[in-house]
Amino acid sequence: MATTTISDGDRAHMRAALALAKRGLGNVWPNPAVGCVIVAEGRVVGRGWTQPGGRPHAETEALAMAGALARGGTAYVTLEPCSHHGKTPPCAEALVAAGIRRVVVAIQDPDPRVAGRGIALLQAAGLSVVTGVMAEEAAELNAGFLSKVTRGRPLVTVKLATTLDGRIATHGGESRWITGAAARQAGHLLRAETDAIMVGSGTVLADDPELTCRLPGLSERSPVRIVVDGRLRLPLTSKLVSTANDVATWVLTQEGAEQDRREAYEESGVDVVELPANDQGLDLNRAMQVLAESGITRVLVEGGAHLTATLLRQGLVDRLVWFRAARVMGGDGLPAAVSFGVDHLSQMPGFECVDVRRIGADLVENYRKI
Amino acid sequence: MATTTISDGDRAHMRAALALAKRGLGNVWPNPAVGCVIVAEGRVVGRGWTQPGGRPHAETEALAMAGALARGGTAYVTLEPCSHHGKTPPCAEALVAAGIRRVVVAIQDPDPRVAGRGIALLQAAGLSVVTGVMAEEAAELNAGFLSKVTRGRPLVTVKLATTLDGRIATHGGESRWITGAAARQAGHLLRAETDAIMVGSGTVLADDPELTCRLPGLSERSPVRIVVDGRLRLPLTSKLVSTANDVATWVLTQEGAEQDRREAYEESGVDVVELPANDQGLDLNRAMQVLAESGITRVLVEGGAHLTATLLRQGLVDRLVWFRAARVMGGDGLPAAVSFGVDHLSQMPGFECVDVRRIGADLVENYRKI
Repeated sequence: MATTTISDGDRAHMRAALALAKRGLGNVWPNPAVGCVIVAEGRVVGRGWTQPGGRPHAETEALAMAGALARGGTAYVTLEPCSHHGKTPPCAEALVAAGIRRVVVAIQDPDPRVAGRGIALLQAAGLSVVTGVMAEEAAELNAGFLSKVTRGRPLVTVKLATTLDGRIATHGGESRWITGAAARQAGHLLRAETDAIMVGSGTVLADDPELTCRLPGLSERSPVRIVVDGRLRLPLTSKLVSTANDVATWVLTQEGAEQDRREAYEESGVDVVELPANDQGLDLNRAMQVLAESGITRVLVEGGAHLTATLLRQGLVDRLVWFRAARVMGGDGLPAAVSFGVDHLSQMPGFECVDVRRIGADLVENYRKI
Repeated sequence: MATTTISDGDRAHMRAALALAKRGLGNVWPNPAVGCVIVAEGRVVGRGWTQPGGRPHAETEALAMAGALARGGTAYVTLEPCSHHGKTPPCAEALVAAGIRRVVVAIQDPDPRVAGRGIALLQAAGLSVVTGVMAEEAAELNAGFLSKVTRGRPLVTVKLATTLDGRIATHGGESRWITGAAARQAGHLLRAETDAIMVGSGTVLADDPELTCRLPGLSERSPVRIVVDGRLRLPLTSKLVSTANDVATWVLTQEGAEQDRREAYEESGVDVVELPANDQGLDLNRAMQVLAESGITRVLVEGGAHLTATLLRQGLVDRLVWFRAARVMGGDGLPAAVSFGVDHLSQMPGFECVDVRRIGADLVENYRKI
């Protein structure tokens, strides 16, 4: 077998490893979601992915499955194997110890504790290492983890459900439902693949949402619920507060919060995080840093129009997932985003469409920040 | 050759006839855009389509091209051949006289002067007639003509160019350009295929548009320009008025227009049409009837937000062509449609997406009224 050239077979095995890695999205923070496939004598002998909570790692899982069959084989790993001694011995050492001969890596791990050392360790042990296979797909899969490590903030995806003319509710606040059942299910699936859901307090006051993943078999995958609530308006009787002992719920508010109010939330199981404010309200750049420091790699923002606008103004929106119903509401409907200082066309934040497809009677459009 | 069953070859020839018919769209009103292909001994011997202004008809053109080769052949016609003596003898008679043996028709002509008589005439003369081949495509192609005949009004298509959040301009009125060059060219192509472009007077005051088709080779295809202008606000110095002697320009206004003002428009070559008003302004139902009576089969509405809203409110929008840029503007941008009385989600006019595709960096979404 060629060791330095990349074959179609290599790409196929890496594609399988990426599909395994995807299972961990939303479930493994603060760790990256990694997939691993071990192939020996032309047969897949081991498969693994990062387990809930971030451990065991994908390589550990795949090596355990392969056992002695791993000897002489090739390991396909979606992210450079770790090289540092943490709670467990490093995966790079485990691959060497298992007798793996060749390691195919999609992308390097930018974590300064790894950053090429995993690959160097493998090469020093005499293994052949190929990198960059399906690198673009792997970078997209781990965009949250990479963002946390390289930018110190999570990947921010804003999810919207609007009419053709960009309205999220009638002037009276009626918003259930603008899009159809298929689109709403896809929205729940997005929740299962994110570490945290973020909403503004206005959305809680208007809709009293649960913000959990309510898909069959995925109810355990509900992410951390985060409310941006500068003035602690979140009602203690809201569904979010009353279920905070079951599903992690964090409130981000301004420094100097009233102590009694803060304690009342905390007694219900809510974590209250105090942050500095600026002239736009809560400093969301700082908020995102704090989330990354807490391990959050992916945030899904689900409104409302004020939070979306503030994030757009501050350049914090990395992705848009736009569900669009084939309806027109007119100018008195509530906008997707309130005004955020666009006086000229050139000032509009720019995105590129990476995918558009029909879902039920609606469209789902996926955009990436340019 | 089988005469009553439909073969793949039949469908292929009809598809070709439909492609020929499409050449007439926007150019043949008040007549329908028809295509005709004549096949004899397995060879295409004649092709024709309705000529500019509506005559000669497609069958006449195809028969002239085929000459004596038509004898014993099959004619594929996208619309039932006419049976009435108008300015020229009916096409059904011409097909019989040319010795055509079999006629394949996509759809019947609902025009009460035809309405099955063309087919009956062919059958009475001993020709075999098959109908309904590619009927759906033919009905879509001639949706304008069918609307004029069966509903007494043109097909109304609203074209929009907005941001993701449905904005057509900044709060200061900047709208050039929200979408990219490819989308704008596609917009000009829509103009070439419509009989008339309609705008509100506010759009003329804001943008002073030309509303002509400015594509290489298609500049002669500029449709009638129609301004909905209840109070005769259209400036005499506007591009529309000053070019009205070159490109047909109609102003629809309220009954009782000031006579001097009306005459000033007319001296510039503008046709002024007075119409009754209702509490929404000009009675647009009546306006559409008048346009159909004038022969217009297809109207392309290009804004602004008031005209779009009024048409939506009155249920007059049959199609939407929505060009969408991957930008977000925020709530102070001008809306695609002003308020038009949607207090509950159930009141929103409904459309179905028939096509969505990328065009340059933008999307173009095609919707049809449900």
